[in-house]
Amino acid sequence: MKDVLIPFDELVSALKQILLQVGFEESRADRCATLFAKADLDGVRSHGINRFPLFLEFIEKGYVKPKNSPTLFSEIVLFERWDGNLGPGNLNAEFAMDRAIKLSREFGIGCVALAQTNHWMRGGNFGWQAVEAGCIGICFTNTKPNMPAWGGSEPILGNNPLVIGIPRKESPVVLDMAMSQFAYGQMSLYAQKGENLPFEGGFDLKGNLTKNPTEILENHLALPMGLWKGAGLSLVLDLLASVFSGGNSTHEVDHNGDEYGLSQVFLCFDPIKLGLAEWMETKIDSVLDNLKNSAVFEGEAVRFPGEKVLETRARNLENGIPVAESTWAKILKHVEK
Amino acid sequence: MKDVLIPFDELVSALKQILLQVGFEESRADRCATLFAKADLDGVRSHGINRFPLFLEFIEKGYVKPKNSPTLFSEIVLFERWDGNLGPGNLNAEFAMDRAIKLSREFGIGCVALAQTNHWMRGGNFGWQAVEAGCIGICFTNTKPNMPAWGGSEPILGNNPLVIGIPRKESPVVLDMAMSQFAYGQMSLYAQKGENLPFEGGFDLKGNLTKNPTEILENHLALPMGLWKGAGLSLVLDLLASVFSGGNSTHEVDHNGDEYGLSQVFLCFDPIKLGLAEWMETKIDSVLDNLKNSAVFEGEAVRFPGEKVLETRARNLENGIPVAESTWAKILKHVEK
Repeated sequence: MKDVLIPFDELVSALKQILLQVGFEESRADRCATLFAKADLDGVRSHGINRFPLFLEFIEKGYVKPKNSPTLFSEIVLFERWDGNLGPGNLNAEFAMDRAIKLSREFGIGCVALAQTNHWMRGGNFGWQAVEAGCIGICFTNTKPNMPAWGGSEPILGNNPLVIGIPRKESPVVLDMAMSQFAYGQMSLYAQKGENLPFEGGFDLKGNLTKNPTEILENHLALPMGLWKGAGLSLVLDLLASVFSGGNSTHEVDHNGDEYGLSQVFLCFDPIKLGLAEWMETKIDSVLDNLKNSAVFEGEAVRFPGEKVLETRARNLENGIPVAESTWAKILKHVEK
Repeated sequence: MKDVLIPFDELVSALKQILLQVGFEESRADRCATLFAKADLDGVRSHGINRFPLFLEFIEKGYVKPKNSPTLFSEIVLFERWDGNLGPGNLNAEFAMDRAIKLSREFGIGCVALAQTNHWMRGGNFGWQAVEAGCIGICFTNTKPNMPAWGGSEPILGNNPLVIGIPRKESPVVLDMAMSQFAYGQMSLYAQKGENLPFEGGFDLKGNLTKNPTEILENHLALPMGLWKGAGLSLVLDLLASVFSGGNSTHEVDHNGDEYGLSQVFLCFDPIKLGLAEWMETKIDSVLDNLKNSAVFEGEAVRFPGEKVLETRARNLENGIPVAESTWAKILKHVEK
């Protein structure tokens, strides 16, 4: 698949035009388009414009409501619960993390739960949002069922991504990981090439671990990272997301295969307000120095989560963002409608 | 190895006698002994009296100071930072979770960070402490380096256990997991029996994944659960623990192989204060019902984290707690000193 290189602003502008056509207001179209484009800008191509066609389809089906923004359910000191009203998931999530940041400015810690929201696309965006505000941010979402429990033969757990962002002047640490060892999108790419996964990524029909992506995709039995451990963590994140928000848990999200009406939690910690700023930077630097200077196996390198992002971002800002030629052609066609 | 069955009170009393001999005050000896015995009571034999000899050794070496309890560094609204003063890790952790519970009663959320503390033994105890107070509790600790980074050939990450407890009338959900796929103690047992691990559990000298426990133990290269994912999460937990507490990060804990002066974080959420009580129980029940009623592979069963604990506890309270005969003999000998 050939890529074209598209300047960031041009990408945002094209997506924005399309969003305006499907009912977004001006400023929300701009912000939503920016969040999509930022995923590609930062090199997370799986969760950027690659997801845009499905996003449009969900708007058409009425699962995502372009004009809806969150409304407040309840507020108790530093904890707020919001109804996402099935608005666009990335806008809702950005709003929720922004509230959590504001609460943390006041109380040191802020916690926001969001019910009835939608797929937040690239979760890392909201980790970056927190660290760019100088805050430690933790957020997680549930999803539709897409992994088995440990021992189970049908998908009942979500892969429930977890994001943890820790601010740092040089390069922040932003962990953005789903509870499945591999994403379904990734496994599809291996399957298309007729290749095995580099590590076991799911179960075959008999419940054995396998590297064969086709078998995994057929059964929808992706492997929880860390086997029983990731299965446990996924369950617990779903419980926390649905209990805090009062919204759907993973099994309630299962709308005949379509994924909408999710539950999410956003936690934010302001290091200055909490009195951690004095040593934070030094502490993090020393841990990362120790990591980067550690011995590696031949040909390997160790990285911290998010390490490559700023480099990729700078390169893509300079050269343009790689977009599959066919995808870009489709986007342009849409814009001209 | 033959087991004897020891009544809970008898076990606590024996451990308490020994702790009194090594400088504990009465009530702290009682509490510390109880926390050790509770691990065995709940079936977590790896982190109960099995660890007691090493605990005594650490007291003798001056790493664990029986008379020291936490002193306050700073308090900011609902966030407190404490110096553990190298006191007994389980007493310090119980103290910290208790503070977090009290803060959550007042503000909805409480957060306590602990520097210069020691191994908390069974982390699950503090998850149970939170849920028995009706609270959602999250805590994590760093450890000495005992896993490689992804691509790394020397241990530089801690296995940094994470505990998440969610209260429930029938049987609470308490996840208690280290970031390594298998514990070193577990792997030693497989090695002693000359058996392979059931799943890949670490790296050989060339950096390949292996099920051979002997190779893993020789190199001290335990596998992070979920490969690169657990490695990332472990790093992030260490950063959070050391930044929040201002204490040691994993690489600073590396005291020539001895493990003391750890950093820990305790987060607590009071569902009543936060207004979540109305739906919490129903929500959790429905998720667990869905889990327990899901399809399984032949001969398998699905469980939620902590599910077996109450059953094991009841059985051990009735029949006595299984303790290795040789261990019990040593304890009795110690008591008679």
